[in-house]
Amino acid sequence: MKHILMLSTGGTIASKQTGHGLQPEIPGDDLVAEITELKNLCKITCRQILNLDSSNIQPEDWMTMAQAVCDAQNDFDGIVITHGTDTMAYSASALSFMLQNLQIPVILTGSQLSIEEDGTDAKQNILDAFRTAITELCGIYIVFYGKIIRGTRAKKMFTKDFDAFHSINAEDIGQIKKDGTVIINELVRPKNVFSADICIDPNIFVLKLVPGTDPTLLDTVIDMGYHGIIIEAFGCGGIPNQTRSLLPCLKKAKEHGVSIIIASQCTYETVDLTVYDVNVQAAKLGAISGLDMTIETLTTKLMWALGHTTDPQRIQEMMHTCYSGEFRE
Amino acid sequence: MKHILMLSTGGTIASKQTGHGLQPEIPGDDLVAEITELKNLCKITCRQILNLDSSNIQPEDWMTMAQAVCDAQNDFDGIVITHGTDTMAYSASALSFMLQNLQIPVILTGSQLSIEEDGTDAKQNILDAFRTAITELCGIYIVFYGKIIRGTRAKKMFTKDFDAFHSINAEDIGQIKKDGTVIINELVRPKNVFSADICIDPNIFVLKLVPGTDPTLLDTVIDMGYHGIIIEAFGCGGIPNQTRSLLPCLKKAKEHGVSIIIASQCTYETVDLTVYDVNVQAAKLGAISGLDMTIETLTTKLMWALGHTTDPQRIQEMMHTCYSGEFRE
Repeated sequence: MKHILMLSTGGTIASKQTGHGLQPEIPGDDLVAEITELKNLCKITCRQILNLDSSNIQPEDWMTMAQAVCDAQNDFDGIVITHGTDTMAYSASALSFMLQNLQIPVILTGSQLSIEEDGTDAKQNILDAFRTAITELCGIYIVFYGKIIRGTRAKKMFTKDFDAFHSINAEDIGQIKKDGTVIINELVRPKNVFSADICIDPNIFVLKLVPGTDPTLLDTVIDMGYHGIIIEAFGCGGIPNQTRSLLPCLKKAKEHGVSIIIASQCTYETVDLTVYDVNVQAAKLGAISGLDMTIETLTTKLMWALGHTTDPQRIQEMMHTCYSGEFRE
Repeated sequence: MKHILMLSTGGTIASKQTGHGLQPEIPGDDLVAEITELKNLCKITCRQILNLDSSNIQPEDWMTMAQAVCDAQNDFDGIVITHGTDTMAYSASALSFMLQNLQIPVILTGSQLSIEEDGTDAKQNILDAFRTAITELCGIYIVFYGKIIRGTRAKKMFTKDFDAFHSINAEDIGQIKKDGTVIINELVRPKNVFSADICIDPNIFVLKLVPGTDPTLLDTVIDMGYHGIIIEAFGCGGIPNQTRSLLPCLKKAKEHGVSIIIASQCTYETVDLTVYDVNVQAAKLGAISGLDMTIETLTTKLMWALGHTTDPQRIQEMMHTCYSGEFRE
């Protein structure tokens, strides 16, 4: 019988009603004890490493999670991490860069309703996560509503629907059928030996562009000493270059050695800085295309890259290296 | 035969290749001349009011568009506005608040490929826009890839796919079938006399929250004198309230009379500030729920509301008044 480690971090799944809204309070042992089917599936060890609503998860908490996985990955056949849904996609991406070539599956899951609520999705999601954790998959995945999604491709698309996570610009890795069968469409296996590389630099800023965005703001942000900036731009990466032009800011960022990544507000498909005047000029000033990566992945990847170097040339190389299936090559 | 006004503003649809990427150069008359089917459909008058890549459209340009519609709405049976796709959803939303109870259809359209490119979607979209402009619909819509979407509900979801716009948290208003038949699922009619209310205040900031967002940034933004701030928060509106807590900033914003709107990073469903500790506390400090409105609609609606008042109580009332089908009541 396989031996699976469950790391619990809080989240809605473990929440109880308090006088001022839901807060995570139920320990991991109690979550597992609720699901009788788990007894015949695998041996389980529980460790409570955090107890946070995932809106409160910080980059330092990703390091705690990564260290816990790193410490345990030799001793278990798989790992399940229970986590709030709000920032689960960020955590899954961060872990994907910090922990490469994992030889076991590491499955993040959670739920839209607390395990104590009637009609909760918590039990099914935990069961599905353990079913996936005993397979031959390797690496970081989110299992939710019967889907297996690569850690670097997931996005929370719905605030409340049980089918909350979608795989963006990539097919689901697999599904868990109602009878418990796990279907794996793409068996991801490690290409090399496991390595942990947990250092990150959270000193980045994400600018959501809207018409009327004042360049003074971006100018101020550069002066504040951020090491990297992601601009969530229009369409395939459009940046204003006439009224309220951001080009002088891009020039200043380049002079200060601050890396600028261009992402898109469109959920699907790729940034392309080669087509329009409004993005060609940004690319000429050193702005780096975010390709078809999600904003969650760009955020965590940039923090991780900045944990290694602040040299914009090297940052560009790292952002355009595919470490964990995060963009289409 | 109905008489339709075409206002052209630039965009990919009117673009030509230049030495440094595509730029809008083709006048509106030439766009219309390309489509022979239009001759038997309606009488057309063309006016070129702007000539911009829509990444360069600014709030002041929405005022130019609104004024042009306002000036013409008595003299035409419908209006078509050609526009770049990148910020079309912002413009459609802005016009929806500025021009209420229009007695005619005002249809924004554009394309993913220039009208000069092989296999372009420009001709079909223009033709569909005119077909919709001669119907009994009233108000602002986007017509794209055979869909009629309410101006306050549209979002560009794909950077390049022809089916670029989706209606968020609302059904499409209608479809244009391949044979040219316009199917209207919901016939929106004015409830009152037409009114133009074109004043806006673009002095707002949109904060995209990521794990690790430094409260100092928000603090600085409040000091910069912005009149309104939208926080694109986690899940149904989660705001960090432990490490890197944003609550002191919300308190400061309240003291400075700066309105704070909470939006969601999830594309679908509603913000709800009543469920979790991480949003209940924000609501107590005066943060206003963005309900199920898109970020494009929240941005333009907040600018428009601030054009009338900076009193946060009055802003809250306006944000929670449904002017143009922008949220589910």
